[in-house]
Amino acid sequence: MPTSRLEAFSDGVLAIIITIMVLELRVPEGPTLADLRHAAGLGLLTYVLSFVYVGIYWSNHHHLFRLVDRVDGLVLWTNLMLLFFLSLYPFTTAWMDQTRLEHQTPVVVYGVNLLLAAVSYYVLELSIFHANGPDSRARAALGMDTKGRVSLLLYVLGILGAAFIGVWVGIAFYAAVAVLWIVPDRRAERYLREHGSPE
Amino acid sequence: MPTSRLEAFSDGVLAIIITIMVLELRVPEGPTLADLRHAAGLGLLTYVLSFVYVGIYWSNHHHLFRLVDRVDGLVLWTNLMLLFFLSLYPFTTAWMDQTRLEHQTPVVVYGVNLLLAAVSYYVLELSIFHANGPDSRARAALGMDTKGRVSLLLYVLGILGAAFIGVWVGIAFYAAVAVLWIVPDRRAERYLREHGSPE
Amino acid sequence: MPTSRLEAFSDGVLAIIITIMVLELRVPEGPTLADLRHAAGLGLLTYVLSFVYVGIYWSNHHHLFRLVDRVDGLVLWTNLMLLFFLSLYPFTTAWMDQTRLEHQTPVVVYGVNLLLAAVSYYVLELSIFHANGPDSRARAALGMDTKGRVSLLLYVLGILGAAFIGVWVGIAFYAAVAVLWIVPDRRAERYLREHGSPE
Amino acid sequence: MPTSRLEAFSDGVLAIIITIMVLELRVPEGPTLADLRHAAGLGLLTYVLSFVYVGIYWSNHHHLFRLVDRVDGLVLWTNLMLLFFLSLYPFTTAWMDQTRLEHQTPVVVYGVNLLLAAVSYYVLELSIFHANGPDSRARAALGMDTKGRVSLLLYVLGILGAAFIGVWVGIAFYAAVAVLWIVPDRRAERYLREHGSPE
Repeated sequence: MPTSRLEAFSDGVLAIIITIMVLELRVPEGPTLADLRHAAGLGLLTYVLSFVYVGIYWSNHHHLFRLVDRVDGLVLWTNLMLLFFLSLYPFTTAWMDQTRLEHQTPVVVYGVNLLLAAVSYYVLELSIFHANGPDSRARAALGMDTKGRVSLLLYVLGILGAAFIGVWVGIAFYAAVAVLWIVPDRRAERYLREHGSPE
Repeated sequence: MPTSRLEAFSDGVLAIIITIMVLELRVPEGPTLADLRHAAGLGLLTYVLSFVYVGIYWSNHHHLFRLVDRVDGLVLWTNLMLLFFLSLYPFTTAWMDQTRLEHQTPVVVYGVNLLLAAVSYYVLELSIFHANGPDSRARAALGMDTKGRVSLLLYVLGILGAAFIGVWVGIAFYAAVAVLWIVPDRRAERYLREHGSPE
Repeated sequence: MPTSRLEAFSDGVLAIIITIMVLELRVPEGPTLADLRHAAGLGLLTYVLSFVYVGIYWSNHHHLFRLVDRVDGLVLWTNLMLLFFLSLYPFTTAWMDQTRLEHQTPVVVYGVNLLLAAVSYYVLELSIFHANGPDSRARAALGMDTKGRVSLLLYVLGILGAAFIGVWVGIAFYAAVAVLWIVPDRRAERYLREHGSPE
Repeated sequence: MPTSRLEAFSDGVLAIIITIMVLELRVPEGPTLADLRHAAGLGLLTYVLSFVYVGIYWSNHHHLFRLVDRVDGLVLWTNLMLLFFLSLYPFTTAWMDQTRLEHQTPVVVYGVNLLLAAVSYYVLELSIFHANGPDSRARAALGMDTKGRVSLLLYVLGILGAAFIGVWVGIAFYAAVAVLWIVPDRRAERYLREHGSPE
């Protein structure tokens, strides 16, 4: 089946996830900058981080599906699994904020959430390869997905760092993945430039 | 009239329903895993269940409308009726969570909500058959919809089980429907493979 | 300019409005049907009413724009004005629920909201006629819009009834408009059947 | 890459931002007009203002992308930056409401938010020029973007006015920008009329 409706539904879910996180920001009770910093300082920091993550997923999802010619039922479900773990970001982000980054467990749980989303994205890629065959454009363009594998490793290191060293070690590793990906995945663009695009 | 805008609107509503349920999860007040389990343990469980249900409806809706050539005013309204009952999932899910699955009434009400959504889907199918005529592709591909009828039966058994035996009997029947459908409806895919697709 | 993005944006806003109203339903604190009735009884009633209204607007908007060949900046803004008044439905609905339909002012304010949305829809039609010219299909198909004018009258009567007689008189008039429109506007369908459609 | 999915995602995010602001309106506790004015009077005023701002951005975004032939990774990210600052409107609006426009800091912060969104829009234009080349239609139609530069100046004056004179001076300057833009950007329409459109 064609990919248009899967893309539209994913765009809708990602648009909502990226936007409702702002509802978790606590409105300051007093009128001063100190009130703002107290109520929403950390919240804004983690909001930026989570916004960037969801933005990265949207951008990569966008690039990925430009290479996809067809999807099947399995792809629908691996895509829903990815959306499920992304939909938990507002929840795990809020917990981390509310405990003011002073405790390790919420930071570890946040990292596990990030990791599960990354694993789901990897599984989504595999299901797309399966639906489009070994000679498909997606398979050729993405190849080994080294960057995806490095991300998984960095998340695991961040989780371990947060659990055994300190929360800021974890945050640093998580942020490193964001930096790694903020340059969007050029493989799709390069492939389409070299091999032409069906559009 | 063509189906594109009905599909886009339904995708939007389903994307919101599937995502706002996460807002019902209570953020733990303390920083430990025990706090997480206390605050959101059951919530996560029922969130997964409701996410899967909405995912199933989206997937089947997607498959169904690939077979639909035209819609009329009646289809618009049966589709809205389906969306209405699906939009109550966050509400009935939240009640069930808040009473911690210790009472039968919320589980019965949740089952009634699931049942009404399933009945609406069935009515939507009938209205599509009506709009597309007895020789339409939708009619030919879906046939008797045995799976839909079995689901109705399982929901009724779950409601009765929750009411007269115990909440976990009800939950088990509800989950059985999810398992039955998590394999997306292949009839549409099969029909389109055998008879060709207009796309 | 073409209408596709205006329709997509409107669908998004309407999908959100129709769905977030469920967040206003108060989850019952106890586990019995009496708790449900106490917490959400009136809320469910007005939720159904508001869901039906938004559904009617979506359905009519859908029919209307099938007749529209082009839009200009004025249409963008009259459409935004309509969306603005529709976006207040969750707020005025919540006030009416919270005061338990025991006071006239919230019911009057709700009626004024319904009236302003209906007036906006009428202004949107006028701006579409202006953008598409006196010989356009929209102009020919919609004609005098008697049904729209009757609705305005019924809303005014409902507001006066709620203000001077009692809340249920108001609710009855408001519901009468919903019944009048729940049969979607067949003028667009008829016109397209008789004159052909560009799709 | 083509612009369709970027437009759809942006429409989704803007639709959510424009709609969830209504959730910030406090439902009055009593049933009288005085209760309504007390609870939501200022809120409604700033809701209208923010709704108009987001409406302006959507309208201009719509016009802008009609001139855009292709986007690259940089455009994806400058667009996300714009959406990020727009997504903070509900938060800064709520703070300004909650402190009842009696304090300067929240009004200054609101102005900074407006300014950052306007700067992001400007950066988005630059990234589009970069992706489409110096001879592109976007470049030719938008030219110097005098109106955009005047807006930046007005926002800065409003921020300074709110900080050093009084909140209403700030609000007046912010509202002046809205008035300036409520007439949608006709440059795109004019250009497409004179040079033809690819649609």
